[in-house]
Amino acid sequence: LPYRLYYWPSLPGRGEFVRMILEDVGAEYDDVARREGVGAVVRARQGALGGVRPFAPPVLVDGEHVVAQTAAISLYLGERHGLLPADAAGRSTALQHLLTVADLVAEAHDTHHPLGKSRYYEDQVEAAKERAAEFRSNRLPVFLTYLESVLRSAGGAHFVGGAHSVVDLHVAHVLAGLRYAFPNTLRRLAPEVPALTALAERVVARPNLAAYLASPRRLPFNEDGIFRRYPELDPA
Amino acid sequence: LPYRLYYWPSLPGRGEFVRMILEDVGAEYDDVARREGVGAVVRARQGALGGVRPFAPPVLVDGEHVVAQTAAISLYLGERHGLLPADAAGRSTALQHLLTVADLVAEAHDTHHPLGKSRYYEDQVEAAKERAAEFRSNRLPVFLTYLESVLRSAGGAHFVGGAHSVVDLHVAHVLAGLRYAFPNTLRRLAPEVPALTALAERVVARPNLAAYLASPRRLPFNEDGIFRRYPELDPA
Repeated sequence: LPYRLYYWPSLPGRGEFVRMILEDVGAEYDDVARREGVGAVVRARQGALGGVRPFAPPVLVDGEHVVAQTAAISLYLGERHGLLPADAAGRSTALQHLLTVADLVAEAHDTHHPLGKSRYYEDQVEAAKERAAEFRSNRLPVFLTYLESVLRSAGGAHFVGGAHSVVDLHVAHVLAGLRYAFPNTLRRLAPEVPALTALAERVVARPNLAAYLASPRRLPFNEDGIFRRYPELDPA
Repeated sequence: LPYRLYYWPSLPGRGEFVRMILEDVGAEYDDVARREGVGAVVRARQGALGGVRPFAPPVLVDGEHVVAQTAAISLYLGERHGLLPADAAGRSTALQHLLTVADLVAEAHDTHHPLGKSRYYEDQVEAAKERAAEFRSNRLPVFLTYLESVLRSAGGAHFVGGAHSVVDLHVAHVLAGLRYAFPNTLRRLAPEVPALTALAERVVARPNLAAYLASPRRLPFNEDGIFRRYPELDPA
């Protein structure tokens, strides 16, 4: 039985962290809302999938198990597909890293929606400029140099267990998103994070992922998603 | 060997979700910064504990294992102390719920710091009023009625596995924090979430927790923490 994934069909968003795993392991999956439209996500949130009703997408269905929350989905898939350490401490460390990436993703999102998700970006541009300035000068360097130091302490090649894992995939994808949204800032920070940069290059060169990234299944980043390129939030 | 916990000693914050678990199971733990002061947390973040350097507190040390991120710590403790379902799907559902609570906690925090963590509240009061209004009228009811419906679907007594778990503890504590920070809003919402309210009452009546909550080990909520009572953010 293939997996079913439910996520907004018009943006990569948090669903893309799940797709990266599914594509990397070569899993068969039905990206339901890409076929059926946004109504499939709405119905999933209303409880149409059975199991535990999800708060928000992405949602993964594996037989009877319905699971939401990106890090929970990633831990579940990582355990089933050998993309996590086998020991409890190693899995715990992996989850810790997934959650630090999730915090970075949330703060990247909040640069364009500091006053809340229910208002348009255009109605909060001035607050967004302030929040983005703080993100570029303070939070983003703190997150990236932290991840760089953790990766180097782990030997430089992989985040956990001396092997490729869902953590490497998440880190590679958040870097791709940040490079899209904050190209000038990322160019300035690149010399400080060579191990992260090299990791991201190795990840996207993995055969299954290289094929996926070149396929129409990969949605491009855009200004409806988490990582948005607004020039006023990333001055040259 | 007792656990060691590192968290800011002057506020309950995210550390309190970990303390609630440790106290409930009667674990022996050293709340290091309560004895040694804030420097213990600073040194932990600099890597003084060995193991994987934490991004931010809370940090739990169990022998060789050093783990940060509230949900990762809670999953680790829950597995060791029988406060999680034994099956993979049940644990996955539990993690999903922990992360939804973490999202609610983050949004509660952002009501008073919408423009970023590095500025004082007093320098972002106007933006905070806007963000808090959105939280009170939209996000908070959405989160609470969601959790209420999930709890009822699970039978009304417990969130996962038909038994007390770290999820019940997290939900009870976030409700306590929200009641502190948004007393007027919570009073208005209470009739819509009777199962959550009853759960929170059962949790704080558990003997170990009742003793803990009456002890000096329990830090009161205050305006340095996540849940802050600012009257202008919760009008009558």
